[in-house]
Amino acid sequence: MQIVSTTHLPPAGFRRLHEHTLCMPDEPYYTEAELCDGRLRDTEVLIATFDYRVTREIIHAAPHLRLIANFGAGYNNIDLDACRERGIRVTNTPQPVIEPTAELAFALMLDVTRLTPLRDRQLRAGQAEPFGVMNNLSRSVYGKTLGIIGMGRIGQALARRAVACGMHILYHNRHRLSPETEQLYGAEYVSLEHLLEAADIVSLNLPFSPSTHHLIGAAELARMKQTAYLVNTARGAHVDEQALVQALRDKRIAGAALDVYEHEPHIAEELLRMDNVVLSPHTGTGTMEGRIAMCECVCDNILYFATNQSTKMNIVL
Amino acid sequence: MQIVSTTHLPPAGFRRLHEHTLCMPDEPYYTEAELCDGRLRDTEVLIATFDYRVTREIIHAAPHLRLIANFGAGYNNIDLDACRERGIRVTNTPQPVIEPTAELAFALMLDVTRLTPLRDRQLRAGQAEPFGVMNNLSRSVYGKTLGIIGMGRIGQALARRAVACGMHILYHNRHRLSPETEQLYGAEYVSLEHLLEAADIVSLNLPFSPSTHHLIGAAELARMKQTAYLVNTARGAHVDEQALVQALRDKRIAGAALDVYEHEPHIAEELLRMDNVVLSPHTGTGTMEGRIAMCECVCDNILYFATNQSTKMNIVL
Repeated sequence: MQIVSTTHLPPAGFRRLHEHTLCMPDEPYYTEAELCDGRLRDTEVLIATFDYRVTREIIHAAPHLRLIANFGAGYNNIDLDACRERGIRVTNTPQPVIEPTAELAFALMLDVTRLTPLRDRQLRAGQAEPFGVMNNLSRSVYGKTLGIIGMGRIGQALARRAVACGMHILYHNRHRLSPETEQLYGAEYVSLEHLLEAADIVSLNLPFSPSTHHLIGAAELARMKQTAYLVNTARGAHVDEQALVQALRDKRIAGAALDVYEHEPHIAEELLRMDNVVLSPHTGTGTMEGRIAMCECVCDNILYFATNQSTKMNIVL
Repeated sequence: MQIVSTTHLPPAGFRRLHEHTLCMPDEPYYTEAELCDGRLRDTEVLIATFDYRVTREIIHAAPHLRLIANFGAGYNNIDLDACRERGIRVTNTPQPVIEPTAELAFALMLDVTRLTPLRDRQLRAGQAEPFGVMNNLSRSVYGKTLGIIGMGRIGQALARRAVACGMHILYHNRHRLSPETEQLYGAEYVSLEHLLEAADIVSLNLPFSPSTHHLIGAAELARMKQTAYLVNTARGAHVDEQALVQALRDKRIAGAALDVYEHEPHIAEELLRMDNVVLSPHTGTGTMEGRIAMCECVCDNILYFATNQSTKMNIVL
């Protein structure tokens, strides 16, 4: 098969595709024009990364396309209507993103409560408070309540970590989990309103859909405790970023840790100057180990497709 | 009883001592001269913080002193020989430091592998790599091996967190733990040499004594993997700081996260400029919650002392 990747990925991750022809850009990404200019004429499989918009034009330029193997769990980068019309299959990589993303959510939660990035920055700039018993104090997560919005696989991987850190778990989800799964984390299913009012830390771990746009806006932030923190490692548009900036500026919540932004890669200027904020450049899955595991999962999907083992593929369309 | 504290601590934490007289400095600390200048003439109990050197001179200036209630788990700030000669009791606060310190050790471990403080700093300075699938990559702790040197209560609280994050545990300790405790964490008892050679992250969680001075020097750092990280939240003098600077500069290990320093509060200048390092101003127990819990534990020790319930005190001498 002829395979094209929208994005430069580690070639070592695709050795198992050696029986096929794989084209990849030397630059980080092919431009849309490069893809539409004949390069996809014989392409049967397109590997796309979660940050690359696969438009109707690109799909139109690939008359033999049969599979888009997305690199990522989210696939809102792909024009699914255009795929549906042509019967093009779409797969994703849900498994390898779970642990790295939960790990980053947990790291960011500790960062914004224990203030380690702030202290590190202050020490480097020579602006830290002196060492001292009552200086440089922060907040502990031990004994606190974590409210997880979106209790899928990533939310549960976060809950597992939080329980070991002495936290209590509330969650809100489309569907309630089984009693056995709830018991595993001592997790209590509550309404969104209850969660926002009771949690010391609110973490967003749900996929994006039009119905979750601005799920957290001014009204929801107003429900949160003044001592509470917001952590978002899911999708930026879940949160009304301007409302968040205002809540942080007015100290209506204690802080926020963000890996994703409403107008990515743009970050609201004010966030960059706030000490009660920790910022990360959308790297939830961005570890060496995570990237390799995602490559392996893309290979699996393509090889199962090539051998007609569709039940083993991660099919989303 | 007349009680003096070396250090300004939250008065709210000592309400339970209301039947006694408590003196506390308005400034962060009394100077040694202030303490020796008659202030301790009638003092029976001295509250000392772990960062305050209680010298033979201070003890000599307190003829009625019967108890030093240390605020902290470590008590190498106190001249124990001078206490022994006078039959002065010394207590510490081992319980409330466990969870905050393990929490910080865990936060720092995630910080130096996931590089969240570095990314936050780069974004704020406008020096981050652009958002992109293969940019801003870091390392994951999931599936990695954590080597814990000092498997007491803090070491075990760290192990509990690490297991929930998908890590394997090796440990080295004066005494081997019971099989039941080992099983709790899937922890394997190994020699120091084996631990240094096999661990992806080495964490120091042992108390300081003259025999642990420079426990980690050039030879020990040379045993570590080139991809390994060192985390120290115990005591600075466990590590030969100059040898560590050289190992980091020469990339003989991947990084270090430090809450304590050999010549505290001085931090080796070079560490402040390294991107593979995370620095924290000795705040292992420095959370609001931790400070309040430590005050409560000091109160317990004093009140049990006042009512001759010595079996309930945290006696170290």
